[in-house]
Amino acid sequence: MNADSKIAALDTAAFREQWVNYIHGLQDRICAALENIDGKSRFMEDRWEREQGKGGGGKTRVISNGNVFEKGGVNTSVVYGEVTDRMKQQLPPVDAKQWFAAGLSLVIHPFNPYTPTVHANWRYFELYDANHQTIDRWFGGGADLTPYYLFEEDARHFHGTLKNAMDSFGQELYPQYKKQCDDYFVNTHRGNETRGIGGVFYDHLRPADAKHADQLMQFQQANGDAFIEAYCPIATKRKDLPFGAREKYWQEIRRGRYVEFNLLHDRGTIFGLKTNGRTESILMSLPPTVRFDYGYKPEPGSEEERLWKVCLRPKDWM
Amino acid sequence: MNADSKIAALDTAAFREQWVNYIHGLQDRICAALENIDGKSRFMEDRWEREQGKGGGGKTRVISNGNVFEKGGVNTSVVYGEVTDRMKQQLPPVDAKQWFAAGLSLVIHPFNPYTPTVHANWRYFELYDANHQTIDRWFGGGADLTPYYLFEEDARHFHGTLKNAMDSFGQELYPQYKKQCDDYFVNTHRGNETRGIGGVFYDHLRPADAKHADQLMQFQQANGDAFIEAYCPIATKRKDLPFGAREKYWQEIRRGRYVEFNLLHDRGTIFGLKTNGRTESILMSLPPTVRFDYGYKPEPGSEEERLWKVCLRPKDWM
Repeated sequence: MNADSKIAALDTAAFREQWVNYIHGLQDRICAALENIDGKSRFMEDRWEREQGKGGGGKTRVISNGNVFEKGGVNTSVVYGEVTDRMKQQLPPVDAKQWFAAGLSLVIHPFNPYTPTVHANWRYFELYDANHQTIDRWFGGGADLTPYYLFEEDARHFHGTLKNAMDSFGQELYPQYKKQCDDYFVNTHRGNETRGIGGVFYDHLRPADAKHADQLMQFQQANGDAFIEAYCPIATKRKDLPFGAREKYWQEIRRGRYVEFNLLHDRGTIFGLKTNGRTESILMSLPPTVRFDYGYKPEPGSEEERLWKVCLRPKDWM
Repeated sequence: MNADSKIAALDTAAFREQWVNYIHGLQDRICAALENIDGKSRFMEDRWEREQGKGGGGKTRVISNGNVFEKGGVNTSVVYGEVTDRMKQQLPPVDAKQWFAAGLSLVIHPFNPYTPTVHANWRYFELYDANHQTIDRWFGGGADLTPYYLFEEDARHFHGTLKNAMDSFGQELYPQYKKQCDDYFVNTHRGNETRGIGGVFYDHLRPADAKHADQLMQFQQANGDAFIEAYCPIATKRKDLPFGAREKYWQEIRRGRYVEFNLLHDRGTIFGLKTNGRTESILMSLPPTVRFDYGYKPEPGSEEERLWKVCLRPKDWM
């Protein structure tokens, strides 16, 4: 988006540009790191623009049928428009006429059931009044891991890396955002089973003034920067572990729970689809192959049950 | 439910009993007809009761890994309870304190991609005031077909059988309920693609008096009775057609759309899960194996595209 857009306010133009440049650079870095691990498939880019009368677009980058990654997307979008009635129900209660949003969203589904699925998202919103003045703005984001088998050292590495990235901004942040993540990614219809082993999740981080906005920008970038170190060593370590039909079956059952969460509970997915977002970019989060069995239960005492039990009662990994 | 239940009103007790007996008999007949086609697997029954303090229960009957039917459920439930705030949002605007619902719901997913998936549901509701008087009651129901490949003769047979069952109750009913079905089973986030080739769908059929109630009971039973004739000859005709990996792949892609509809749009599914319904019985509707590809498009001019195009523009099959 140009800084002189008719919609977005001028007072925050440089800030928006800084954020947009950051997510585009991070998208390049993450795709390169994942391609390096995969060794076979490359990300394919779909550039898209919103329909006439609506502003902005995105770069959807999808990898499929790799050595390591069966399906994944690392997407950026920079979009803006008029506030609709449908959106108002989801937005803070200010009298906003127009909005701007820019973010990076990724979901990676490896083929090997010992390699965890990962999701992350970092986003920035602005709301404007009828005079194109910025009346609200905030950052949100997070990253969470969905293993099919539990390696405690991987859980500690993932959480520890995210914690390290946050700690210099306040020791209280990681525990708070870790809890918000555990509370958010929950299949309430499945006895409050979590989607995976969590990570961090935060939203509505509003700058009090310009200096605070810069601090939040640094915080947001520290989180984004930590992703490659949080996930890639785990994928590298687990990608070649031998597995059989049993492990693949269990992975596909758990992927079913991933689908259930994303379509039944995930606010971003439902909001995106109901407000006419780009369906293919939103639903790239769904796993490639999935299984839904009636009344499936893991064998008592098995590794599958061990993973499942951790999802029923989130753990402190630090 | 006993006719002397503390919740349900006495004035409609015999009517309820008639309906409950009907759906239990129909459940037996449908399961027997499907087992007969399958020739290998039998339906397994799970009887369940609602948690303490909530009334009623159900008989969930599931078939899996058959010769013909990869996964399916033919479920009845007879349930009642206090009206909660969450329910009020979905119920007619009367001051109801308690409710009763009894219905049969089925979804059958065959293995062979040339054999269509089918769904049907017939239900009866009552609402009561604080004095246990019946203040509202209605029937709802319908049946719809989801083929993966289009055989026009099958579409005509399915729709024709449903139409025949309705015609003696009014020639205007089939066209009206056929349209309601086309309008309901729509993936709005997929360019208004329908889930399949439709059938009939009706709701809130309210009796004006006791005589009309008996007429609606006859109408409802005529629809339920037509199911076996509407579906079974199609399954029998297509179950042994040879197919390969291409047809299975396409079936799993289309099953993905089935999942998307059920979890994103189906009111019954979402209402059931959010009001603490029995998750396994509700989600037995999800197909056994599913595939979600990014940006999947059928080949131009192919049989897959031909099916897809019928879903983009519902046809009159009569």
